[in-house]
Amino acid sequence: MDVKSIEKLLNDVKNDAVSLDDAVKKLENLPFSDLGFAKIDNHRAIRVGYPEVIYGEGKTVDHVKQIVEHMNGNGDNILVTRCSEEMAQAVLDVCPDAHYNQMGRTVSISNTEQDIPEGYIVIVAAGTSDLPVVEEAYETAKILGNQVKKLTDVGVAGIHRLFANLDVIREAKVVIVVAGMEGALASVVGGLVKKPIIAVPTSVGYGANFGGLAALLSMLNSCASGVSVVNIDNGFGAAYNASMINKL
Amino acid sequence: MDVKSIEKLLNDVKNDAVSLDDAVKKLENLPFSDLGFAKIDNHRAIRVGYPEVIYGEGKTVDHVKQIVEHMNGNGDNILVTRCSEEMAQAVLDVCPDAHYNQMGRTVSISNTEQDIPEGYIVIVAAGTSDLPVVEEAYETAKILGNQVKKLTDVGVAGIHRLFANLDVIREAKVVIVVAGMEGALASVVGGLVKKPIIAVPTSVGYGANFGGLAALLSMLNSCASGVSVVNIDNGFGAAYNASMINKL
Amino acid sequence: MDVKSIEKLLNDVKNDAVSLDDAVKKLENLPFSDLGFAKIDNHRAIRVGYPEVIYGEGKTVDHVKQIVEHMNGNGDNILVTRCSEEMAQAVLDVCPDAHYNQMGRTVSISNTEQDIPEGYIVIVAAGTSDLPVVEEAYETAKILGNQVKKLTDVGVAGIHRLFANLDVIREAKVVIVVAGMEGALASVVGGLVKKPIIAVPTSVGYGANFGGLAALLSMLNSCASGVSVVNIDNGFGAAYNASMINKL
Amino acid sequence: MDVKSIEKLLNDVKNDAVSLDDAVKKLENLPFSDLGFAKIDNHRAIRVGYPEVIYGEGKTVDHVKQIVEHMNGNGDNILVTRCSEEMAQAVLDVCPDAHYNQMGRTVSISNTEQDIPEGYIVIVAAGTSDLPVVEEAYETAKILGNQVKKLTDVGVAGIHRLFANLDVIREAKVVIVVAGMEGALASVVGGLVKKPIIAVPTSVGYGANFGGLAALLSMLNSCASGVSVVNIDNGFGAAYNASMINKL
Amino acid sequence: MDVKSIEKLLNDVKNDAVSLDDAVKKLENLPFSDLGFAKIDNHRAIRVGYPEVIYGEGKTVDHVKQIVEHMNGNGDNILVTRCSEEMAQAVLDVCPDAHYNQMGRTVSISNTEQDIPEGYIVIVAAGTSDLPVVEEAYETAKILGNQVKKLTDVGVAGIHRLFANLDVIREAKVVIVVAGMEGALASVVGGLVKKPIIAVPTSVGYGANFGGLAALLSMLNSCASGVSVVNIDNGFGAAYNASMINKL
Amino acid sequence: MDVKSIEKLLNDVKNDAVSLDDAVKKLENLPFSDLGFAKIDNHRAIRVGYPEVIYGEGKTVDHVKQIVEHMNGNGDNILVTRCSEEMAQAVLDVCPDAHYNQMGRTVSISNTEQDIPEGYIVIVAAGTSDLPVVEEAYETAKILGNQVKKLTDVGVAGIHRLFANLDVIREAKVVIVVAGMEGALASVVGGLVKKPIIAVPTSVGYGANFGGLAALLSMLNSCASGVSVVNIDNGFGAAYNASMINKL
Amino acid sequence: MDVKSIEKLLNDVKNDAVSLDDAVKKLENLPFSDLGFAKIDNHRAIRVGYPEVIYGEGKTVDHVKQIVEHMNGNGDNILVTRCSEEMAQAVLDVCPDAHYNQMGRTVSISNTEQDIPEGYIVIVAAGTSDLPVVEEAYETAKILGNQVKKLTDVGVAGIHRLFANLDVIREAKVVIVVAGMEGALASVVGGLVKKPIIAVPTSVGYGANFGGLAALLSMLNSCASGVSVVNIDNGFGAAYNASMINKL
Amino acid sequence: MDVKSIEKLLNDVKNDAVSLDDAVKKLENLPFSDLGFAKIDNHRAIRVGYPEVIYGEGKTVDHVKQIVEHMNGNGDNILVTRCSEEMAQAVLDVCPDAHYNQMGRTVSISNTEQDIPEGYIVIVAAGTSDLPVVEEAYETAKILGNQVKKLTDVGVAGIHRLFANLDVIREAKVVIVVAGMEGALASVVGGLVKKPIIAVPTSVGYGANFGGLAALLSMLNSCASGVSVVNIDNGFGAAYNASMINKL
Repeated sequence: MDVKSIEKLLNDVKNDAVSLDDAVKKLENLPFSDLGFAKIDNHRAIRVGYPEVIYGEGKTVDHVKQIVEHMNGNGDNILVTRCSEEMAQAVLDVCPDAHYNQMGRTVSISNTEQDIPEGYIVIVAAGTSDLPVVEEAYETAKILGNQVKKLTDVGVAGIHRLFANLDVIREAKVVIVVAGMEGALASVVGGLVKKPIIAVPTSVGYGANFGGLAALLSMLNSCASGVSVVNIDNGFGAAYNASMINKL
Repeated sequence: MDVKSIEKLLNDVKNDAVSLDDAVKKLENLPFSDLGFAKIDNHRAIRVGYPEVIYGEGKTVDHVKQIVEHMNGNGDNILVTRCSEEMAQAVLDVCPDAHYNQMGRTVSISNTEQDIPEGYIVIVAAGTSDLPVVEEAYETAKILGNQVKKLTDVGVAGIHRLFANLDVIREAKVVIVVAGMEGALASVVGGLVKKPIIAVPTSVGYGANFGGLAALLSMLNSCASGVSVVNIDNGFGAAYNASMINKL
Repeated sequence: MDVKSIEKLLNDVKNDAVSLDDAVKKLENLPFSDLGFAKIDNHRAIRVGYPEVIYGEGKTVDHVKQIVEHMNGNGDNILVTRCSEEMAQAVLDVCPDAHYNQMGRTVSISNTEQDIPEGYIVIVAAGTSDLPVVEEAYETAKILGNQVKKLTDVGVAGIHRLFANLDVIREAKVVIVVAGMEGALASVVGGLVKKPIIAVPTSVGYGANFGGLAALLSMLNSCASGVSVVNIDNGFGAAYNASMINKL
Repeated sequence: MDVKSIEKLLNDVKNDAVSLDDAVKKLENLPFSDLGFAKIDNHRAIRVGYPEVIYGEGKTVDHVKQIVEHMNGNGDNILVTRCSEEMAQAVLDVCPDAHYNQMGRTVSISNTEQDIPEGYIVIVAAGTSDLPVVEEAYETAKILGNQVKKLTDVGVAGIHRLFANLDVIREAKVVIVVAGMEGALASVVGGLVKKPIIAVPTSVGYGANFGGLAALLSMLNSCASGVSVVNIDNGFGAAYNASMINKL
Repeated sequence: MDVKSIEKLLNDVKNDAVSLDDAVKKLENLPFSDLGFAKIDNHRAIRVGYPEVIYGEGKTVDHVKQIVEHMNGNGDNILVTRCSEEMAQAVLDVCPDAHYNQMGRTVSISNTEQDIPEGYIVIVAAGTSDLPVVEEAYETAKILGNQVKKLTDVGVAGIHRLFANLDVIREAKVVIVVAGMEGALASVVGGLVKKPIIAVPTSVGYGANFGGLAALLSMLNSCASGVSVVNIDNGFGAAYNASMINKL
Repeated sequence: MDVKSIEKLLNDVKNDAVSLDDAVKKLENLPFSDLGFAKIDNHRAIRVGYPEVIYGEGKTVDHVKQIVEHMNGNGDNILVTRCSEEMAQAVLDVCPDAHYNQMGRTVSISNTEQDIPEGYIVIVAAGTSDLPVVEEAYETAKILGNQVKKLTDVGVAGIHRLFANLDVIREAKVVIVVAGMEGALASVVGGLVKKPIIAVPTSVGYGANFGGLAALLSMLNSCASGVSVVNIDNGFGAAYNASMINKL
Repeated sequence: MDVKSIEKLLNDVKNDAVSLDDAVKKLENLPFSDLGFAKIDNHRAIRVGYPEVIYGEGKTVDHVKQIVEHMNGNGDNILVTRCSEEMAQAVLDVCPDAHYNQMGRTVSISNTEQDIPEGYIVIVAAGTSDLPVVEEAYETAKILGNQVKKLTDVGVAGIHRLFANLDVIREAKVVIVVAGMEGALASVVGGLVKKPIIAVPTSVGYGANFGGLAALLSMLNSCASGVSVVNIDNGFGAAYNASMINKL
Repeated sequence: MDVKSIEKLLNDVKNDAVSLDDAVKKLENLPFSDLGFAKIDNHRAIRVGYPEVIYGEGKTVDHVKQIVEHMNGNGDNILVTRCSEEMAQAVLDVCPDAHYNQMGRTVSISNTEQDIPEGYIVIVAAGTSDLPVVEEAYETAKILGNQVKKLTDVGVAGIHRLFANLDVIREAKVVIVVAGMEGALASVVGGLVKKPIIAVPTSVGYGANFGGLAALLSMLNSCASGVSVVNIDNGFGAAYNASMINKL
């Protein structure tokens, strides 16, 4: 709870601008809207810089639709991740202007213009099988108001493809590295640039990949300094983090 | 085996109220009914306070139907958990008054009135994706004869939603916390209330959640005292335990 | 943050009993004492029912000594867990009345009399190798103001030892089951009594015990309802939880 | 390679009853029939006491059919395990006398009469969800020429159901215990009888069961002596082992 | 609880040979001696065929000494496993005739003569690093009253060493296979003999052995039928099981 | 980056045979073709001896088709692995001469004749359920220009089947061992031949096989020297490695 | 390899300012010094912004001493992490001005003044047992030229301690969260501030913490966006990453 | 068992050059010497190309000494791995000419001259902490009769150090890559050379390295073809394998 809002409210109480009962109520009730099944966190934009993102997996199509309608009514920018075909269609029915990225399984709705910072985020990916995660990261970074570049299929098995594109990486403000299998790309990029790197392990690979565990452990143990890691296949989280850094 | 019943039986034998053979038989055969494929534990109500609950998963629809019919004939209250659509339909065919909760995958049949204690159980859940587990816990607590309140979508990413509802948690007699992902809600609630907390990790989340393992380990390692844990997605177990405590 | 204290404070501000600046300060600074390296949570007694317990592992002897001295000055009851010989000696130097339990690795200091509830906690343990965990639980339950009984070496390999002592278990208000190896004792007790059971897996056992993992998984998967679980070897956590329930 | 057959062959060579070339060939080629995709181990009956059993999983229906036909032609007793509906039908087309156990997923063909030993194997199972594994074990023990008794749904949550049936367990020559969840039944039975126990963990259970891992670790760590363990859901392996012991 | 003893006792009660109070007491108190910290299971010899074995790890030297003294007074045969140097010395101080096997970490005391069956147990081990487990198994099998043969250093890397000793394996009644690293020896022996095999994985090996996990999984997944498994490094458990089988 | 090409280019720059700008461009752009979604590594043939292989899993059918068309236009030999029915059909539509191996899930296109070395690779497999991995390895080794022999169903449960075929193994230049379950075959073969062995664990097996983990750990811990291991079910990787060795 | 340096070198070659041989040599040899056992990466400062840090664990005292001497001669700023007492003493012998942090196990040597950016890094830690990791992070951030604030013992079990210090967190440019046990602090802070958060799981905790795995999984699965994670106990990595962001 | 020796023996039997009894004995007893606690595999040199290597860990000093003496008497070349200081001293007492490598924990004794092939093995290592494994591999390759080059401290965090040394890697006949942490070096080297690569994961690294598991999984999942893997820290196994390939 923000010290400044407490101070303001206390002042109002003192000056009788706000009654005691109302003050207690405000402290409790203001910062979210209760839809019954969900409590939408209206206060988040102020607190952490961006409205709640809707994580589609495990939610019913109808719940997602209601949340989107509510947020859309507020004029928020909206992002739905892990969005199935059916869920995307339901959202498009309500907001025909929504943008659906099938490979990335995202739907975005842009209601408010934002200041776009000069620096850009680059998403570097090892192989074509990592594209769904790349696309999730891309859409997230875009809706959060960033310039983004993609550099895909530059895995370490053909490392010269990476070297030929070093400039676009080195000139970025923050780097997202997406890789499955052994995830070595994060370490190699980490050894070559002086920008913060957010590594996303993917669940792409043969047997002992164990659903992305191999790449995850690999990235956590990177011998290159400056690499931090998000969850397996979590393109959204990487881009959210990158956006925070890009906007500093 | 209950010392008192042995004593009673021994007395009866001594007084020739019961023959030796009958006594041996009784000790062996009384406390369950044998359906061939299943042995229904009639004695459980006396021993642990409630009739056997039917765990639907891995059983055939026909077996469940027969067990329900048998127990219904005894006038027991009945709960079927992990109940598929088809299984629920089969039970409803036999007992049209049965109550089916689709999200919670439960069927309940109330045949006997119970004393409802004054205290209530509160179920606190992190996100809307945790609702199936919440509903399983809810139905279990109800059929066991408790007042229950639900407080959902109060995860720590928007912690003020939790603070705005602290009263309903603090006034409960026992608290069930349901959370997936990193399961931090259990620790935060544990640090705020002086009631026993039963934490239920759920299998909701991205890659390195590993089917609920992340939340499970998180809750077991809670830095807040007073938190105990049940199995992943085990809403039933949490509510059963909470009911025992609520009825003390 | 407690709604009632906010209300009280707001009232004081409104009535000019408290200045605005002081109110803000109070909201921020009151509930802990800052020792530099540690922030002692004075407010916890009110919030969760008991002062902070000192977890000795990983702390320096000197830090623990300073925290004990500070709390002792406040007249708190004190419990140090995972306390090495050397650490215990340092505490005894400051508080000669402190009670050191070597097997349980605890030090307790009783400064305030407490109301002892009528019900008791029973600690049931599988083998003699589980005694350190039993003792940690025992000392915790005692300092928290409970009557406690111990029943050790009643593992399922000689199940009649358990049956001969069922009464003392059945008459308790809450049961702690401590077991290593396969931890089956929790399920067996769970099938026999109608009291809430808190199971503590221990790290006792051969190779594939994997430091208590076997007993932990076993207890989490208990086929008996009414069993909840705390961390491996966490006698303290089990007793803390049991005390909460015993005092309801 | 059997020392006695070598001796016999060497004698034949010495006496010119067998030519050198033939002897070498015999040593190499005799003990299996090559179907191209499979090498059927005809020698196994002599070496380990029973013909090869066909493990259906991962094999094509056509391959299984050919192997069955070949073995049937030799007059062998045949057992197919992990047999799908389609595979079973294909075998029944060739051998209409084959016996298909749908729940146990086995097909057995009895071509040769066997001596049945006096002692019997008892299969003790915790719950009705464990029945598929029980049936696999049952069919295996039968085709290998044993008397078998089944005792199901006697899990430790209602331990008196087990006690009421102790005689049938104690009089068996060897005991198979089948249990999922926490697998405690193996330890409890192990503490009550003086017969060798073969424990089969099953993959039945909630989340942290991890596909049978919980029961597996539990059984491996049994505090009761005399319990050995086979693979998860491996009813076949348990029965094979039990049959060896029963026939000693 | 044994049906026959209940029957006998009931008869005595009926005939006034035993008073009611005494009967209840007997049912409760007879089968163990309570040393305070331990309850010695006197009834086990009748129930499962052999007195309790003392597992030294995690027990204090003094506790072990007291248990040994108590059992020695009863004239039991005694086995202490996982026995440290210091613990062994303490036992030898009380019973100078005790036999200490340093490599196997066992102490055995033979007070009663036993019938030794004709069949023998063979312990087959892969390498010299497995010897501590072999010795534990050997001492266990001996004190339980069996003939035992040892065949060590016959791992599959030099498989002819095994073939040269096949007779001693084939003529045994039951086979214990002890192996670390990849534990392949169990499968190879299992493919060659028609006797029940009890496999003991050991914690011997390089990095990805993970404390015996590699050998454990390997043995559980043995492609040879007739192999059951005990815990990692559990020579005692294997021998106990083998003894049960050998005495059938 | 190859020192010799740098030297050559530097020389050209010095002699004005190449302009500065062109040289920089060449260093950056030459070694791959950019299809937008993929960067085909044309340089790989020179660098590591063979063109890129297309890993089908996780790629769209359309992407694979485009890559194949591009590479086919270059006259490369092509291999697609993990190729679904639909993907195979799409490739066959473009290149009717392509060879589809359904069991091995591969498509190969031979455009260039190669020198076939004299030595051959032998693929030794434990069971018929391992055939898909065998076929993947077989097709890989063929398209890379090797002679290959297959020896299947020679698992250690019937070890004489292996001995009868030792010659074909001993005369190979390099050996691939494919096995699931406990993977013991690798150790047994490793103890019998003096050729490098590449072991491929497969995901074939019962419960505690854990998707091939058992065989993987088993092979990594092989007591036989000279065994190296590739990923679970990775027939392609084993054959690629074997081809490198066979061509030395 | 940096495109600009290649361009420069090519130009020099073209203008005969550099001979061909020298150019090749330069491309190969310049960027590191070979000490025989180690190759010190002189080029790293230019490439990734900071000289190599010396990771002490697993290195001999003598090797570390030599590397420090060599780098000190170059006037580099130096950081040794995971530095034992003995290693620290050896470094202090050579550079008496070095700063040794015993709790953080670091030695730092400051030879060059740096520009310190205005923003600061805040290190937020859950408990006093996490202090070694906090100190490693602190020393790393300092030697890399940053302002750093520490906020320790603010774990979620007493969440008001955190709220009382929110300002110092909210005003930082980047936040490091250090926590063991269940690591919930990362999620709670992540829900309250709009700055990038780098989470460091520590190995502090009871049994099922599994050496930090619980906190690691918890942080990777954080329900709060904007949290990225480094390796367990890796205070250095977190601070390095934070420094990169702080200097943007 | 070698077909040719069987043939020879059969011939001798036929011609009465060898008696029947002697033949049977020979088949059984020839290929190893029995020291009681160990069976030395004399036949291995013929069968797999090199005498048994002595793995020191878990063996007593005395056993190793006896084995060395026995083998030394046969004039074998000898290698002891995982050799403690004390063990090394004991061997040096018997064979003063033995060569002890303290860092690699090996002792080698060269009794027989060997043909050294022209090609060489290169050992490429990521960091100085990997040196013990490098040295074990080095000594193994030398005693097996190979030319060996070492290239250490060329990890991917400073990838130009690797590029500057590519020639020595590319000209080798076979490459051993030793790396801890994330083990990315194997993939990078694998993408650059056309020689078979044997990767050795090491247990070097921070927390989530899990004793080498991270590097192991990373290497098994390498996106570069031509990489096979041996056990964690198994320098010996890698070199043995490399020697086999180098001598083809």
